[in-house]
Amino acid sequence: MIPLISIVGIKNCGKTTLVEKIVTELVKRGVKTATIKHDAHGFEIDHEGKDSFRHKQAGASSVLISSQEKYAHICDSDEDMGLDELIAITPQNVDVIITEGYKGADKQKIEIFRKGRSKKLLTVDNGLVAVATNDPENEALKVTDKPLLNLDDPAEICDFIEENIIKNAEYPDVILVVDGKSIPLNDFVAKNIASTVESYIVSLNDCDDPDQITLKICLGKKRK
Amino acid sequence: MIPLISIVGIKNCGKTTLVEKIVTELVKRGVKTATIKHDAHGFEIDHEGKDSFRHKQAGASSVLISSQEKYAHICDSDEDMGLDELIAITPQNVDVIITEGYKGADKQKIEIFRKGRSKKLLTVDNGLVAVATNDPENEALKVTDKPLLNLDDPAEICDFIEENIIKNAEYPDVILVVDGKSIPLNDFVAKNIASTVESYIVSLNDCDDPDQITLKICLGKKRK
Repeated sequence: MIPLISIVGIKNCGKTTLVEKIVTELVKRGVKTATIKHDAHGFEIDHEGKDSFRHKQAGASSVLISSQEKYAHICDSDEDMGLDELIAITPQNVDVIITEGYKGADKQKIEIFRKGRSKKLLTVDNGLVAVATNDPENEALKVTDKPLLNLDDPAEICDFIEENIIKNAEYPDVILVVDGKSIPLNDFVAKNIASTVESYIVSLNDCDDPDQITLKICLGKKRK
Repeated sequence: MIPLISIVGIKNCGKTTLVEKIVTELVKRGVKTATIKHDAHGFEIDHEGKDSFRHKQAGASSVLISSQEKYAHICDSDEDMGLDELIAITPQNVDVIITEGYKGADKQKIEIFRKGRSKKLLTVDNGLVAVATNDPENEALKVTDKPLLNLDDPAEICDFIEENIIKNAEYPDVILVVDGKSIPLNDFVAKNIASTVESYIVSLNDCDDPDQITLKICLGKKRK
């Protein structure tokens, strides 16, 4: 998997602000960073009157706009997408993914415990790897032996992420999505499928040393 | 390939408006439609102050925000992405892709020829399959024997797209992107790779009748 850490915590504990600080610090260190955020309330990301907005308003289920330095994609999903499906959309050439939220997902988490707001840890039995807090003496933190990081020191938090999350990344990283659903693969199958596909690819022109491979296959069964 | 038609023409000939009308009509007919648009001038798609904007401003190279009914993804690209790379990002469950622009790409095109603005056809030797015009008697159109469709009649244009583009889709449709570059596959290789991967997939749990398969592999060569 691309190294991933989720920044979680109760509502209004400062998740977006911390993600912002972590991203700023990681990028400063030369770490190519992606973010994923869940918005339970829906969102409006486009500007009325823009061409891409007009495409979407007309009913397109997927609108992609591309310029020289970036692209933007707005796409309907049939249901609330799981984190694994969103990871599959994130480009593979990043060094780390930071998620804002997703406390219920089966991923490693840094939980924010903010003085005067947080009452107890939410993820102590569900992937907690560290706590980011400005209230380290709080009794509620006694339930965990994970490191307490300084909520107001993004450099310390990023040291932890680099040392414990990014350095431990495992390759090959294989993501498989079938009919919109992410399929978990064990190591054996992942390595096997990666080496089969790699051996195909290297036989093609201009592909003698592939690193990142995306293969999309539509068998057309549902269209005939 | 997912059926694709490009709506092309000179600047300010009404491409966005025609794409908007085509999408509206196709969606009304139950055709699941995606669009791709090139913006040479760059674009600002997000709203200042929004969380996703803050992630991007902090330097994240990929920002993905997901709600119950859609997701939005803003992602840096190293260079102006080719149409094939953008097609690879579009979800495979659409029935047709309409591009606005991309007159230089190796795809089928409907060119807009607008009275008082257009002087000559740009794509007569480069994928033109029909002209959408409100000036059918213009001498400049004598260079082609392709059908002249009524620019102001989206139903007629959509009839043409359904009959000539969507019905002729070929499966399996295989898209391969290696290290950010789309790799063309001949039919033999595409079928072969599709059937190899399909045979892997059907051996996994919960995957006995796959239709759309996305496989992303990062070998990690560039990270070790």
